[in-house]
Amino acid sequence: MVLAAAWLGGILAKRMGFPAILGELLIGIILGPALLAVLETSADLDILAEVGILFLMAYIGMEINFKDLGKASWAGLLAAIGGFIVPFGLGYYTILHFGGTHVAGLFVGIAVGVTSLATKSRILVDLKLLDTRIAYVLMAGALISDTLALIIFAGIIGYVEAGSIDTAGLVWVAGKAILFFTMALLIGIYLFPLLGKLLTKAKLTSRTILVTILIIMVLGFSELAELAGLHGILGSFMAGLFIRDSVFSRQILKDISAVFHDISIGFLAPIFFVTAGFHVTLEVFQTDLALLISVIVGAVVGKILGTTLFYLPSGYGWREGFTIGTGMNGRGAVEIIIAGIGLQMNIISQEIFSILVFMAISTTLTVPVFLTWTTNWLRKRGELVKQAARNGYLILGANPLGLFIAKQLAEQNEVILIDYNKDLVQEAKAQGLKAIYGNGLREDAFEEANALNTKTFIALTGNSEINLLSAQLAYNSFYIPNRIVLVSPVENGAGLNLLEHMDASSLFANKTDMVPWSYKITTNNFEQKAEKIEKEISTRNWFKNNAKNKDILPIIILDENGQKRPFHYKDVIKPKESVVYLQ
Amino acid sequence: MVLAAAWLGGILAKRMGFPAILGELLIGIILGPALLAVLETSADLDILAEVGILFLMAYIGMEINFKDLGKASWAGLLAAIGGFIVPFGLGYYTILHFGGTHVAGLFVGIAVGVTSLATKSRILVDLKLLDTRIAYVLMAGALISDTLALIIFAGIIGYVEAGSIDTAGLVWVAGKAILFFTMALLIGIYLFPLLGKLLTKAKLTSRTILVTILIIMVLGFSELAELAGLHGILGSFMAGLFIRDSVFSRQILKDISAVFHDISIGFLAPIFFVTAGFHVTLEVFQTDLALLISVIVGAVVGKILGTTLFYLPSGYGWREGFTIGTGMNGRGAVEIIIAGIGLQMNIISQEIFSILVFMAISTTLTVPVFLTWTTNWLRKRGELVKQAARNGYLILGANPLGLFIAKQLAEQNEVILIDYNKDLVQEAKAQGLKAIYGNGLREDAFEEANALNTKTFIALTGNSEINLLSAQLAYNSFYIPNRIVLVSPVENGAGLNLLEHMDASSLFANKTDMVPWSYKITTNNFEQKAEKIEKEISTRNWFKNNAKNKDILPIIILDENGQKRPFHYKDVIKPKESVVYLQ
Repeated sequence: MVLAAAWLGGILAKRMGFPAILGELLIGIILGPALLAVLETSADLDILAEVGILFLMAYIGMEINFKDLGKASWAGLLAAIGGFIVPFGLGYYTILHFGGTHVAGLFVGIAVGVTSLATKSRILVDLKLLDTRIAYVLMAGALISDTLALIIFAGIIGYVEAGSIDTAGLVWVAGKAILFFTMALLIGIYLFPLLGKLLTKAKLTSRTILVTILIIMVLGFSELAELAGLHGILGSFMAGLFIRDSVFSRQILKDISAVFHDISIGFLAPIFFVTAGFHVTLEVFQTDLALLISVIVGAVVGKILGTTLFYLPSGYGWREGFTIGTGMNGRGAVEIIIAGIGLQMNIISQEIFSILVFMAISTTLTVPVFLTWTTNWLRKRGELVKQAARNGYLILGANPLGLFIAKQLAEQNEVILIDYNKDLVQEAKAQGLKAIYGNGLREDAFEEANALNTKTFIALTGNSEINLLSAQLAYNSFYIPNRIVLVSPVENGAGLNLLEHMDASSLFANKTDMVPWSYKITTNNFEQKAEKIEKEISTRNWFKNNAKNKDILPIIILDENGQKRPFHYKDVIKPKESVVYLQ
Repeated sequence: MVLAAAWLGGILAKRMGFPAILGELLIGIILGPALLAVLETSADLDILAEVGILFLMAYIGMEINFKDLGKASWAGLLAAIGGFIVPFGLGYYTILHFGGTHVAGLFVGIAVGVTSLATKSRILVDLKLLDTRIAYVLMAGALISDTLALIIFAGIIGYVEAGSIDTAGLVWVAGKAILFFTMALLIGIYLFPLLGKLLTKAKLTSRTILVTILIIMVLGFSELAELAGLHGILGSFMAGLFIRDSVFSRQILKDISAVFHDISIGFLAPIFFVTAGFHVTLEVFQTDLALLISVIVGAVVGKILGTTLFYLPSGYGWREGFTIGTGMNGRGAVEIIIAGIGLQMNIISQEIFSILVFMAISTTLTVPVFLTWTTNWLRKRGELVKQAARNGYLILGANPLGLFIAKQLAEQNEVILIDYNKDLVQEAKAQGLKAIYGNGLREDAFEEANALNTKTFIALTGNSEINLLSAQLAYNSFYIPNRIVLVSPVENGAGLNLLEHMDASSLFANKTDMVPWSYKITTNNFEQKAEKIEKEISTRNWFKNNAKNKDILPIIILDENGQKRPFHYKDVIKPKESVVYLQ
């Protein structure tokens, strides 16, 4: 029932544009002892939840790409530090002010300081922010701030576990922690890659075996952290970090991390979040209202103000810093996990735990609202700076037609071709084009082709279904904004419906059979013509008007400045532009 | 550490040709309190193990295909009943004889009566038995006997849970059980398909969401069974049965059942089997040796004799019955699960539990040994009856060359073509051939093409890598005995190595570039010739001798009786046979 509740809550939250965790927490509060008292926690649930947070932290670690961190550098670091330190300080002093202990203050400080990772990408897509500088800073900032939070958490846990504050004790605690991190680094850097090689050598490459090994690694690192007097989540997080790049080949990692994702996000972690809701008490609204309000206000104001202030040295202006602050205001999985551990270790009371859960819920609710306001504000002022703007073309299908179009576009743009036929890839390379051998239905080929920085995806294999599916992949996994697909006339209606549903456009603005044109191009049996447009006309109308009595294929639109773009359905030809077509 | 131990034990057992569970039990006994006492069980482990058996039973249910049951019919039913009832009776009376309770006797009876499912297919492949009648009877027999065991188990559990034996109590127990099975049937048949439709309608089709739903169903059915006074495993098993065919589309089911497999077999179930080893005591070898020996001998003799006797009415002879008895002698997951539940419910003592574990281990060990003996014996006597022998060809690649070969072979054999290009599939159908649109790297296409009954797989797409990979799939998932692959000359050494490793053969007995031949066939620009062979010669030597100065493509070998077979590397041409080749 807990899992069913989690599922329902998660789905509802997602439908409303919020992360699933929000719904899981809320449904836990509603169905749990706090409100309806239909469900309650049990020893069994607690154990599953505990395994769940270990797995979830490992998964969060696996998702972190050190390369992404590198990209944001200076500005991201500023935002992360400011967005962590200021609310951390405010949270800490709020608890002290209300009579809490130092350790409770530190715990609340961390919980208030973290930033939720998972929510980001979705909101960025919705607000069309993916190619802005804000997006890069936000993503890096969240990563850095969470890593920062976990390091400080490690320190506090070590300190609490030691139970003493004399110098010798602290040295012992610090020594063990340093030993753990050193061992984790050594194992991660030297032993994991060795293990990967051994497994390949011993032909132990079935997915089930590797999933088991992954789980053993995660639990092993957790145990190592526990032995060092730190909390297991630090170990599993570290395991996740190292597993990402070292142990398995890329494709295998993708497979097993998908399974691991399903076990964590689809099974164990939701149990944790719903049961976290069970531990919430609504009495805080009566007994500790002042504290509740202080913590939440401190969290929101601290996060936004801290980010704004610390962002100033970046030179990108306070408004951008403020916007980033509103984007980093959400708290999610990591905060609830830390709060839960604090409750379990009796460091924080049930009241403070409840306050932290309400803080997570309310700050998560603010993100879409605040971020929409602030980005619209920036946009209106013309201060929404694009960074590493997407450009260039990714073309699936290195057939003669694909090569022909690629050569036209490659004069001015970065063009990369993908094909699953090695001969065609060789041919493309021989003609001086960039080409990659890979499957257009798999993410690895896209990654290799740098799809995350590509502006336009063109799919023109002979198989419409493959074209459509890979365009969907281009959109879902790599957010490529423009997708143009060749639809062949043998395709039935379903294909075009899917096209519409996917918001993609049809190449050549018409259903086209590739084979005869490929043949004409190969045998050089065609004329290339150009027509200058006098009056604005949609591509589809141009095609209708011009293709009446003759067999033509409009390839490229040439604008006033000599810029070329592919001819497709969702486009309008402006006066003074030319259509280049084959006949 | 338990998981790591399970992994190690499982790998070692598999390497030696035994099921993983054998290694997991043994390593549990070795590292547990019984021997080295390095590991012991804990409340956490028990809970994970408990979830593990629920998941495992659901997975076992998902693996059962009612269609497979239908195939074996009469003979399989006889083997199943005889192989269950006789050892069941022997086990029951052995326990009574040694002073045990009726309920303990019934429990041991069931444990002794079951047959392990999982071990079968692997051994059948190793002993090259897959196309024999024995294999079909064995597989069906194991399925029926396990289902039978679970039904009787349900009865006993209901009886034990009720705690009383008066008529009213029994009626109440039976009523609840019947209510449960009725509800399960109604939900499975009416509600599950409805749910599937609803999910598709609501576009809730991400794998993670569906895995969650699958888990909710399994746990929900378990709870239902518990409410009816039955054990949860009966519920999860029933859930598995219904999930197989009703809720998800075939492809989605494949995806999520793979994840569910990894969670069960790769994570939770091994914890159960290792901790089952922890509960074993070695003292039984001293205190209860007579009982231990009696149970094991009763299990082995009862199973083999029972099967032999009950198999007589099939009319297939006592020797085949005896062979099937040796094949069904293994006990595995279901037996250990039932024994574990008996121990947990205090129905059987730790001593009897230990005896049952040793019984599982020793009977599992006998299977490969005994079955090798008996099948060799049958083989020598010429009594190894083939059934539903594999025949026909499955050809991947409906290109001109593929169609040409398919037409030659289709004169005498069942030939099915697969291609991922709809136009080529249409063309093949237009030429009167059977053709399926599908991806040669995915199991669903193979299933649709009835690959389990196909004798020869030919892959001749233009991409050698795809050819090799799909041949691997044909072998690994469908055990197709003959695999012939077109290797193109652009391929580097890796391809041919893989070919060797996979025990496949190269089509045309030489690296061949398909394109020029496809072109020649399309333009009808070739001669078809035949050469009669005088002296036995290998295909590769024939090709070497004949392809020296001319460009030829040997397609078919025609034997004395006019039977055609494809020309490939691992073949020898006999005198009076002809080679049909293109020039």
